[in-house]
Amino acid sequence: MIEVFGDECSGNCLKVKWILEYLHRPFRWTQVDILRGETRTPEFLALNPASQVPVVVLEDGRRLAQSNAIVLYFCEGTPLVPSDPFDRARMLEWMFWEQYSHEPYLAVRRFQRLYLDRADAEIDPRLMERGTAALARMEAHLTDQRWLVGETLSAADVSLLPYTMLAPEGGFSLAEYPGVCSWIARASTALGIDAKPDGDGNGASDATS
Amino acid sequence: MIEVFGDECSGNCLKVKWILEYLHRPFRWTQVDILRGETRTPEFLALNPASQVPVVVLEDGRRLAQSNAIVLYFCEGTPLVPSDPFDRARMLEWMFWEQYSHEPYLAVRRFQRLYLDRADAEIDPRLMERGTAALARMEAHLTDQRWLVGETLSAADVSLLPYTMLAPEGGFSLAEYPGVCSWIARASTALGIDAKPDGDGNGASDATS
Repeated sequence: MIEVFGDECSGNCLKVKWILEYLHRPFRWTQVDILRGETRTPEFLALNPASQVPVVVLEDGRRLAQSNAIVLYFCEGTPLVPSDPFDRARMLEWMFWEQYSHEPYLAVRRFQRLYLDRADAEIDPRLMERGTAALARMEAHLTDQRWLVGETLSAADVSLLPYTMLAPEGGFSLAEYPGVCSWIARASTALGIDAKPDGDGNGASDATS
Repeated sequence: MIEVFGDECSGNCLKVKWILEYLHRPFRWTQVDILRGETRTPEFLALNPASQVPVVVLEDGRRLAQSNAIVLYFCEGTPLVPSDPFDRARMLEWMFWEQYSHEPYLAVRRFQRLYLDRADAEIDPRLMERGTAALARMEAHLTDQRWLVGETLSAADVSLLPYTMLAPEGGFSLAEYPGVCSWIARASTALGIDAKPDGDGNGASDATS
């Protein structure tokens, strides 16, 4: 059976959990507690030298890291990966953008606030500034588009959903982004997950990717 | 003809230049000067709302951003993208890792040092620490592997090459990474580029991706 090493506090790990559930792929979840340093033990480093969750171990023992690479591996050959080469490239564009221009601000601010208990004034103001720019960019697209790419749910939506949905835990208000809010509801429904986290869990840090 | 909007100072943009040259795809290069704020003009934002170079405009007018997504778009169907699904996923793992755990440290430290003229003492020490960790991780892999994935050059090597090669401009010594140095020489030769930049150009900032 597929084994997932992850922390349910991390949006990056949730991507993997959600896609495996959506695709009805049975898996075993092994909780790796980021806050307790469990991604830095010798045992974990043998599993992933990059010291990050999620990591997936396939049935044959081969390992894969990086949430977006894992999501794409499982989505390949399903309608979640467009067959048109340009649409496929646009999907990848959103997914690389997520790891470079979205997650490092939305996820990191949430982590500092929720898990390190930092007050807003103690948090680098660039996280709010750039996270807000990321949300505004999504809003500009989602104002007149239902999905990030094409006419249906794709791996790009799976990639962008967790940290967008959890942004309020990082102190970001989604109220001014109605297109984003509609998309969150739509993508959550399509994936069969609860769009309203209760706020007593979920986290992200730079030990996930 | 394909049009590339880029800054030759940026390793992210060099990836696109190199792959188009390697694949003998004719293109026109339009220089966008990051330091002069040319990625923040209304004209540029209409081209890419993410305010980043490189951007490629295809013959039919469609646009694509994010260096790694662009590289994959052009490499698809060539031997640079493995046909085996797992190797393909490993290639993507390296490429997402590049944008999350490599470029934000190696490229950003180089940018601050080379273009913002910051003294080493003024630069956030985490950039050196995490950039060094990224190089060490590559070294561990390249000690007994010739390529990042499989037995030949892939899009992952194209993605990792520029900022690894340019790391000395960011104050990183490559001397203790012989596996990385051999790989730089090998990948540069395979791509037909000069592995020893003369140091009077090349740059990167968070306006590239």
